[in-house]
Amino acid sequence: MTVIKTSESPKLKNPVLIEGLPGVGNIGRVAVGYLISEMKAKLFATLYSEWFFPFVMLQDKYKIHMLKNEFYYVKAKSTKQRDLIFLIGDCQSLSPQGHYEVSEKILDFAQKLGVKEIITIGGLATGEMESSGKVIGSATEEKVMKKYSKYKIDFKAGEKVGYIVGAAGLLPALGNERGMEGLCLLGQTSGFPIVTDPKGAENVLGVLVEILKMKIDMGKLEKKVEEMEDFMKKVESLQKKAVTELAKGAKPPTGEELRYIG
Amino acid sequence: MTVIKTSESPKLKNPVLIEGLPGVGNIGRVAVGYLISEMKAKLFATLYSEWFFPFVMLQDKYKIHMLKNEFYYVKAKSTKQRDLIFLIGDCQSLSPQGHYEVSEKILDFAQKLGVKEIITIGGLATGEMESSGKVIGSATEEKVMKKYSKYKIDFKAGEKVGYIVGAAGLLPALGNERGMEGLCLLGQTSGFPIVTDPKGAENVLGVLVEILKMKIDMGKLEKKVEEMEDFMKKVESLQKKAVTELAKGAKPPTGEELRYIG
Amino acid sequence: MTVIKTSESPKLKNPVLIEGLPGVGNIGRVAVGYLISEMKAKLFATLYSEWFFPFVMLQDKYKIHMLKNEFYYVKAKSTKQRDLIFLIGDCQSLSPQGHYEVSEKILDFAQKLGVKEIITIGGLATGEMESSGKVIGSATEEKVMKKYSKYKIDFKAGEKVGYIVGAAGLLPALGNERGMEGLCLLGQTSGFPIVTDPKGAENVLGVLVEILKMKIDMGKLEKKVEEMEDFMKKVESLQKKAVTELAKGAKPPTGEELRYIG
Amino acid sequence: MTVIKTSESPKLKNPVLIEGLPGVGNIGRVAVGYLISEMKAKLFATLYSEWFFPFVMLQDKYKIHMLKNEFYYVKAKSTKQRDLIFLIGDCQSLSPQGHYEVSEKILDFAQKLGVKEIITIGGLATGEMESSGKVIGSATEEKVMKKYSKYKIDFKAGEKVGYIVGAAGLLPALGNERGMEGLCLLGQTSGFPIVTDPKGAENVLGVLVEILKMKIDMGKLEKKVEEMEDFMKKVESLQKKAVTELAKGAKPPTGEELRYIG
Repeated sequence: MTVIKTSESPKLKNPVLIEGLPGVGNIGRVAVGYLISEMKAKLFATLYSEWFFPFVMLQDKYKIHMLKNEFYYVKAKSTKQRDLIFLIGDCQSLSPQGHYEVSEKILDFAQKLGVKEIITIGGLATGEMESSGKVIGSATEEKVMKKYSKYKIDFKAGEKVGYIVGAAGLLPALGNERGMEGLCLLGQTSGFPIVTDPKGAENVLGVLVEILKMKIDMGKLEKKVEEMEDFMKKVESLQKKAVTELAKGAKPPTGEELRYIG
Repeated sequence: MTVIKTSESPKLKNPVLIEGLPGVGNIGRVAVGYLISEMKAKLFATLYSEWFFPFVMLQDKYKIHMLKNEFYYVKAKSTKQRDLIFLIGDCQSLSPQGHYEVSEKILDFAQKLGVKEIITIGGLATGEMESSGKVIGSATEEKVMKKYSKYKIDFKAGEKVGYIVGAAGLLPALGNERGMEGLCLLGQTSGFPIVTDPKGAENVLGVLVEILKMKIDMGKLEKKVEEMEDFMKKVESLQKKAVTELAKGAKPPTGEELRYIG
Repeated sequence: MTVIKTSESPKLKNPVLIEGLPGVGNIGRVAVGYLISEMKAKLFATLYSEWFFPFVMLQDKYKIHMLKNEFYYVKAKSTKQRDLIFLIGDCQSLSPQGHYEVSEKILDFAQKLGVKEIITIGGLATGEMESSGKVIGSATEEKVMKKYSKYKIDFKAGEKVGYIVGAAGLLPALGNERGMEGLCLLGQTSGFPIVTDPKGAENVLGVLVEILKMKIDMGKLEKKVEEMEDFMKKVESLQKKAVTELAKGAKPPTGEELRYIG
Repeated sequence: MTVIKTSESPKLKNPVLIEGLPGVGNIGRVAVGYLISEMKAKLFATLYSEWFFPFVMLQDKYKIHMLKNEFYYVKAKSTKQRDLIFLIGDCQSLSPQGHYEVSEKILDFAQKLGVKEIITIGGLATGEMESSGKVIGSATEEKVMKKYSKYKIDFKAGEKVGYIVGAAGLLPALGNERGMEGLCLLGQTSGFPIVTDPKGAENVLGVLVEILKMKIDMGKLEKKVEEMEDFMKKVESLQKKAVTELAKGAKPPTGEELRYIG
């Protein structure tokens, strides 16, 4: 049960899907969230899934909020620009299998909207307090890497990190199986958990804005991050708390049980 | 495999679904169980699921009892009242995914019965021995919150607790996706596990009775709780015991196994 | 994926299904295994499942043996007797959900064969070295309990044990939902794991033989147990070893992973 | 979701499926990988699955690589030889259930290609630094064991090891349910994790080459292993790292959660 509900069916021309779900330093979440806000992108679909955490959050003091991912779109404002679909949200899957299933649902949906190119945004934990400010890149094919080689992207992700967990890696990889091109941009960040890194997000935004030929005022980023941070911190700490609570004194049953009775 | 078996198909007029499955302090279980007993509500459907614990309980010394949730109904006795469906049971799901799947099955069933409004009852663990007696509320929409603002409900759940796990949160949230209105009432309780809190339940019952325009004699609540408590304690301690037994020396296999042979 | 393959389709008249899968003291496995051997029951179906352990065992030095459950039948030899179906096997499910799914598959199969009555055999761990020799009973309905009250069965299972894990409990419970009658017989045993208790099995066998109006020579039981024990010990220790190996240094991924990258 | 994508549909005559997925000492991976390289076998299908680890790897510095299994084929070069299908890959399933599901998908695919015989290659961890150089065998039937008894295979696997985890055991076992013959060859190795054992692989290769009537120059094996080792080490250490990261501070939710709220 992974459901995508649409409130509108936009006609888009060769749109790029840009993913910024929660992850290290919330780089993707912040960068894409800021783009949505600055470009006044429009919410047109939401996704929820049995693979998410089995709880609801409370917002605005009283409001029951189901964990969701959201799709926004914005149309090209000039011939140099492209139609864009943004994907942000509260969380990713709780289980390994869920990552594949939710990614496939997202790609089914994207394919129907005509998506042939995916850009995912993530964070790369360096473990150091100081960040080099670099944006690390990886791609599904050589031609994609070459296409983006003129931007300030260090295509040596493989030297810094061996793998990319979750949507930031699986969306381009599984998308590529459908003939889509995929680019993954990772902003370097210290990577301490429950820390949102606006600087890391700004670095990625800088590259992304150039790629997408957009004009974005970065001046409001820090203020926006402050606004977003409360909610993101809450989600993150609640997920952590929930996972810990849930784990306390309880592990999943296994074959051992057969020994007790029956 | 989540099965709902009906023994009767009641014709109900715009019924409200009221959920009281086991949770913190068993507030919901006690409050809804008492309503069922006092209003002589009629059992008309049972639900069992592969997502429940993989054991049966023994009742009345010899009787094999499968873990179940149960649906009761009672018709309005005056024009001020509403037709009601009560949902109580032995347990909720063992796994995260199960919470979503069982909730969706319950909503499919409720929708067929014409349910457009859901009230869930839970407990809010304060961690303190003394309880304020407050009933904390959360709702799916502002209009729902406003509709119930005349009752003694403190709509500041979000300040006290960040999230609601299981059916009490997912039923209104997923129901809302089907156009249903949802209210969740949480009775404050100390929240020590394996403790049934009749006082916390009474507080919620007080509010619920007003909302539903019912006349309920609270005098028998404590006695009823004593009766119910034995079974509830048994279920709870057995689940705890089972989970512990099952976990002992056994964790789920993972990729590591590939290293052993093969 | 739970598959039942039949090598023969016996025509049976109102057969009783008698389950003896591995459990505490291997009481059921030994008792039913001995009946199969003494009554020369015929293997007619095997079941394997994705819910079993993901390994094969090696038998007869070189032979690859997939983990399986097996169905045998024997026809009534006099008008007092009944047609019988026996269910034994190497293991039960590794996961909670699997217990429900495999039990349902077994019941689908049993129903097609005309089964309206199920007797399951298990062990009841007393934790004491000395056993009372009692056979403890539980049943799905009062009429079943009464029907068997003339035999040496102590129908106070509920006082000794609160729950029955796995097939011994779920088969009668889920069978009852299909209108089948269910009886569960538990032989008391010390319950130390990796111990097969022939005495406990003999006690249950004594009752079972009376119920089924069979004449069984108990003299060969101990010898048979010795023969069976090697294999049962091997399965049990391998499952334990496998579970431990698999768990070593590896636990299932969860939401935490989202913090690392992506 | 387990997907097999074919780039070519080779017409094969009674082909043998030879599996060498990662395992102890990477014996199978190395042996089969070397055969593919030396025989210039052709890649014609790839498999990916939701049961694999939920991450992508980075190769060639920038390239996003989804975890996969791969099928290669090579046609008989003389009448003494057979058409062969090779199965290698980056990983096996993360969960027990996945092992069964992926194996069944592989067998569906193999069956369509006309496979009636399966040879799987694995490692047998002796725990000793010195290896005897023996190749240990197991088989699905006596006739298979006899057929291969003229080769240097010690058909006493059952004395050395009680079980075979994953594809090396399940493929022949589940294949046998479809009427296929299965042989499993295990090369003895010290079995220390994250160690690729070229010597153990060479021993198995020696036997395999005789069985398949191939002429293979073993001289390049060590060099090839060095080349392969980097990638295999990376996959292995990443899986280990991922599993450890993922597990850190996070265990799967269970029934306990019901106690917290709701």
